[in-house]
Amino acid sequence: MARREWSLGELTSGVRACDARALARAISLVENGDPLAYPLVRELYPETGAAAVIGVTGPPGVGKSSLIGALVGLLRGESRAVGVVSVDPSSPFSRGALLGDRIRLAEHFLDEGVFIRSMGTRGHLGGLAEATLQTVLLLDAAGKEVVFVETVGAGQNEVEVTGIADTVLLVLMPGSGDSVQALKAGIMEIPDVIAINKADHPSAKTMLGEVRAIIGLAEPERRPTIVLTDALRGEGVPELWQALSEHRARLESEGRLEERRRENLAREVFAVASSRAKARLEAAVADDPELRRLLDAVQRRELDPLSAVREIMEKVFGMRDDALAR
Amino acid sequence: MARREWSLGELTSGVRACDARALARAISLVENGDPLAYPLVRELYPETGAAAVIGVTGPPGVGKSSLIGALVGLLRGESRAVGVVSVDPSSPFSRGALLGDRIRLAEHFLDEGVFIRSMGTRGHLGGLAEATLQTVLLLDAAGKEVVFVETVGAGQNEVEVTGIADTVLLVLMPGSGDSVQALKAGIMEIPDVIAINKADHPSAKTMLGEVRAIIGLAEPERRPTIVLTDALRGEGVPELWQALSEHRARLESEGRLEERRRENLAREVFAVASSRAKARLEAAVADDPELRRLLDAVQRRELDPLSAVREIMEKVFGMRDDALAR
Repeated sequence: MARREWSLGELTSGVRACDARALARAISLVENGDPLAYPLVRELYPETGAAAVIGVTGPPGVGKSSLIGALVGLLRGESRAVGVVSVDPSSPFSRGALLGDRIRLAEHFLDEGVFIRSMGTRGHLGGLAEATLQTVLLLDAAGKEVVFVETVGAGQNEVEVTGIADTVLLVLMPGSGDSVQALKAGIMEIPDVIAINKADHPSAKTMLGEVRAIIGLAEPERRPTIVLTDALRGEGVPELWQALSEHRARLESEGRLEERRRENLAREVFAVASSRAKARLEAAVADDPELRRLLDAVQRRELDPLSAVREIMEKVFGMRDDALAR
Repeated sequence: MARREWSLGELTSGVRACDARALARAISLVENGDPLAYPLVRELYPETGAAAVIGVTGPPGVGKSSLIGALVGLLRGESRAVGVVSVDPSSPFSRGALLGDRIRLAEHFLDEGVFIRSMGTRGHLGGLAEATLQTVLLLDAAGKEVVFVETVGAGQNEVEVTGIADTVLLVLMPGSGDSVQALKAGIMEIPDVIAINKADHPSAKTMLGEVRAIIGLAEPERRPTIVLTDALRGEGVPELWQALSEHRARLESEGRLEERRRENLAREVFAVASSRAKARLEAAVADDPELRRLLDAVQRRELDPLSAVREIMEKVFGMRDDALAR
């Protein structure tokens, strides 16, 4: 079957009308770095900003997808339009999952009011941050009222990706001890809301106590709400949604939503620019035998790594010594 | 007390002679981005390459520092010169630790044959990757036969930092379930050696089985050796050292050490160049009202983020549309 070609005008009006095929195509263009993607998002951007963007993070296997599925079910019961973007390669949204999970999530895959998309984690010219940002903007322009962005674990990628979110939800479960340690050590940023999933696990209460002790050290206005949930049985899901809504309402009433979005957008612009600079560097070295010879010289211990960096920066970006010499 | 001023010549010969004060000063220069740091490492670089560099990674609290302490004790028993660089902000090498840990590690702090340094994780112009790389090169030039680089958890920083290492050791302990899940989900790279620490924990054997099942999926020649250890009681430490030595010996005998180092150095050069490009971007936006106005326009939804990226890239790096338009 020949793939249908979309014009820019058809894509723009299709996304505006929240047409599922137009959205799917638009996101593919974003993922593939197609030349059409850029003017498309540029045209739709002034219409964005209404969606509540919720970043959902946490280690693999704690039930982030199931919890998102349960929240989607709740929102669909209120007929609200929802989008889900998963950048977690271990997510059931992204790949093979437990049968039970697939069935539960499948009901949403068939629901016209929900758009679910998992992003590949490799091969984006401007990095994952760029593809995810553009995808969230498309869902926002399509009129999705709530957009969930699912990401995995700690690390720099995660920071960039949850940097899009108005509200960050960290999902933990009894046994996800590394994340609790990382919170405790100050390595992981304090989220806005914490869900402790699989609430009837014998050590759920112990974990609740540990997490409470850690967040007690944060400034009072930055202390996240903690909710005990059981995604598979739907327990705690209305309470979790309430905590997420309250966080956003508080940001709005205190006038901090715009400030946060401003910081987020600035960070995203930097993240995308940095990824592009890196892609440019890699392409330059791949194409340029002279730059490859520099790396050979480093390997033979004839040229030190920083001198190689200097020469590469000058050649690729025209950055001269005065900017590098410090 | 006035701080002693070091000349480049004094620093170079001091590092060569493995003088502890010269080394400490040289590393501070590297950390502070002092202009002297660059010619210093450049001059010493041809003399590097003899040290075995071992990256030690794993979640906070699993006992990485204690295990490094135990390995240092073993190596000092053989009178081998050792360096330790910690880039884990939660490490006892870096900050307040359990009393027991401090006492155990203190014996090494007082040993002339061991040089221990923890790196701040913020404020490096070329990023943590640059400061860590330069520090490892200084320790190598000072004649350290083994250099341990301690880093925390998964994530991009960790990848860059363990990218320096000839051998990567992942430390887990029963309860560090997130990391096991991350290995399983393919999010965390398979290391060269795995230590399961606190070997007498009731669930140590269960974890051993889980980890074995996961690494059984890797190609046979890439399967890491797993060692059960108890750092506090010294159990399994000689076996761990043997596994680490054997990994490096295998790389050498198969001629893969040079190949790995070549890849590592190329990756480090990219990482440092990318960090510098990012720092340049941030400095440019901070100094340039016109670029800040771009971010304001993005915030007001008048200019889309990618158009802002385009303008910033052109202004800062002279990268024109033809390179960005894709």
